[in-house]
Amino acid sequence: MKLSEIGEFGFIARMARPFAADLPPNVKGIGDDCASLPWTKKERLLVTTDMLVEDRHFLRSGISARDLGYKSLAVNLSDIAAMGGRPRWAFLSLGIPAGIELDWLDDFFRGFREAAGPAGVVLLGGDTTKSPDRLVVNVAVLGTVRSGREKLRSAACPGDVVTVTGCLGDSGIGLGVLLNGGPRDRDEERLLRAHNRPRPHLEEGEWLASRPGVRAMMDVSDGLDSDIRRIMEQSKVGADVALDRLPLSPTLVRVARRRGWNPIESAAVGGEDYCLLLTVEPSRFKLLAAAFARRFGRPLTAVGTIRTRARGLRYFSNGRTARLEGRGYDHFRIL
Amino acid sequence: MKLSEIGEFGFIARMARPFAADLPPNVKGIGDDCASLPWTKKERLLVTTDMLVEDRHFLRSGISARDLGYKSLAVNLSDIAAMGGRPRWAFLSLGIPAGIELDWLDDFFRGFREAAGPAGVVLLGGDTTKSPDRLVVNVAVLGTVRSGREKLRSAACPGDVVTVTGCLGDSGIGLGVLLNGGPRDRDEERLLRAHNRPRPHLEEGEWLASRPGVRAMMDVSDGLDSDIRRIMEQSKVGADVALDRLPLSPTLVRVARRRGWNPIESAAVGGEDYCLLLTVEPSRFKLLAAAFARRFGRPLTAVGTIRTRARGLRYFSNGRTARLEGRGYDHFRIL
Repeated sequence: MKLSEIGEFGFIARMARPFAADLPPNVKGIGDDCASLPWTKKERLLVTTDMLVEDRHFLRSGISARDLGYKSLAVNLSDIAAMGGRPRWAFLSLGIPAGIELDWLDDFFRGFREAAGPAGVVLLGGDTTKSPDRLVVNVAVLGTVRSGREKLRSAACPGDVVTVTGCLGDSGIGLGVLLNGGPRDRDEERLLRAHNRPRPHLEEGEWLASRPGVRAMMDVSDGLDSDIRRIMEQSKVGADVALDRLPLSPTLVRVARRRGWNPIESAAVGGEDYCLLLTVEPSRFKLLAAAFARRFGRPLTAVGTIRTRARGLRYFSNGRTARLEGRGYDHFRIL
Repeated sequence: MKLSEIGEFGFIARMARPFAADLPPNVKGIGDDCASLPWTKKERLLVTTDMLVEDRHFLRSGISARDLGYKSLAVNLSDIAAMGGRPRWAFLSLGIPAGIELDWLDDFFRGFREAAGPAGVVLLGGDTTKSPDRLVVNVAVLGTVRSGREKLRSAACPGDVVTVTGCLGDSGIGLGVLLNGGPRDRDEERLLRAHNRPRPHLEEGEWLASRPGVRAMMDVSDGLDSDIRRIMEQSKVGADVALDRLPLSPTLVRVARRRGWNPIESAAVGGEDYCLLLTVEPSRFKLLAAAFARRFGRPLTAVGTIRTRARGLRYFSNGRTARLEGRGYDHFRIL
């Protein structure tokens, strides 16, 4: 059988199965943004890891060493945010090809520290080695979360409001601009920056995890269209998503219009936004959204509703059924 | 400045420095086989990570998928053994090039489970992605160690006996045989197996950590000549090593003789033996070695003595000063 036939998520499920039986009931393994383990009396330990391979996840010509160092850590911090936790310690493995010199690495570490410092994260270890040609970066992050506050993908219930903590699509359009080459205007530079230097929603995640009514949570890494399916699978539910309600930044709308790209498609399948996608008990949503807006000065945008499993994923636009042309990112199906 | 001018260990020191100031006193970061953190009242948490890049750490033609899966985990388990700990949870990141299919990955996971099962390790998460051409494997392992039993590289004292828990050089000669190509006899296959399927000395490590008199400990991964220098740096000591006392397997002696290779050089610089290198209070060594031989049916071999820092590293052979031609492995200096 071909790997592409079962896809990334099918592969992970296949490999995880033999280990699932060995898990003690208080340990959560594969299937969420982080694994989670008992820690102290009041806290649980979260662990996440991400690998970035040159020419697959980034082009060395398309991102500065400093931004790459920042992003390598930030994408892992986002996984901790998605569980409602606080990141604490990082481990960095670097496969370094010939031609990368100390100045480049110093900049990489400068960026890494720019992500680590404000988040209170300390680098505790890792591995450095040469790589035959491509740069490889693997980061693992350990964090903690108050027991009982941990947010999982599996907690969504029919009726829940589906909501996101930030605009969608900026990062995806930023990548599109980069891959299309040519000169970039100020708007386009801004979207490229959203792609190269995503802000993990750490404060938002911890705050949301402390509020009543927040059920399932995860970060938007593969794109809303792909990520909502993860919540559907883990929670055994369906979802209706209103494409006309996806929050779009004015910058994205301007750039998409000029380039002739579909802004809503980009927002739905773009990926790497690293805001949070969550479901909220319907009776609690209004109060929560108001408190969120007061606390963060930005809206918590309702983009859909959780339904029963039989309904599957349905898109709407202005109240009518709609469909997407593209699909969310699957590492083994696309490219 | 060139990376090769400061070498792997200089680079690690340079990058670790800005983070060292942020470490609370009960957290141990970069500089040992594992990082170590407070865990429960009675235990500390150990974390280690290792990256393997195709054509750098392995040739896909030189190791079976099953052995590679086994080895990817085993080298990390060895780091836990080196601290006297017990491994518990593993995280696996895989960068998978086109052309690797599901059968190959099933075999890889079979080998991974063969290392995990007997060690009581459960796979809790990771990351899977495509890689443009080369296979990349990053494993992180979390383990635990009884508080107070954790063994560090920094605990060696002048006068200590330097000792190893297994034969040296089998893995290095196994690699030499592989790289030379051509047909292999049974002896050579055995050494290649030592290279492709190293046994982490987990029971030995935990047992040694529980005995009085064991001071510094680490695993032999880069080769005795390189690894003893790590103990010297961390403990601020020197060392005398008796090359004529290095434990050599009869298989290694036979193969080296036939191939015209120097068995003692191979044992001193070979690397990837994954036995343990430790220093022992001199008054305790005799009893410890006798108990080790009873428990494991193999000797704990004395190969040298820790000296004051000013002495540096000195090699002896049959009581006379000696020197090595080769050097231990440094990822940025040797290719």
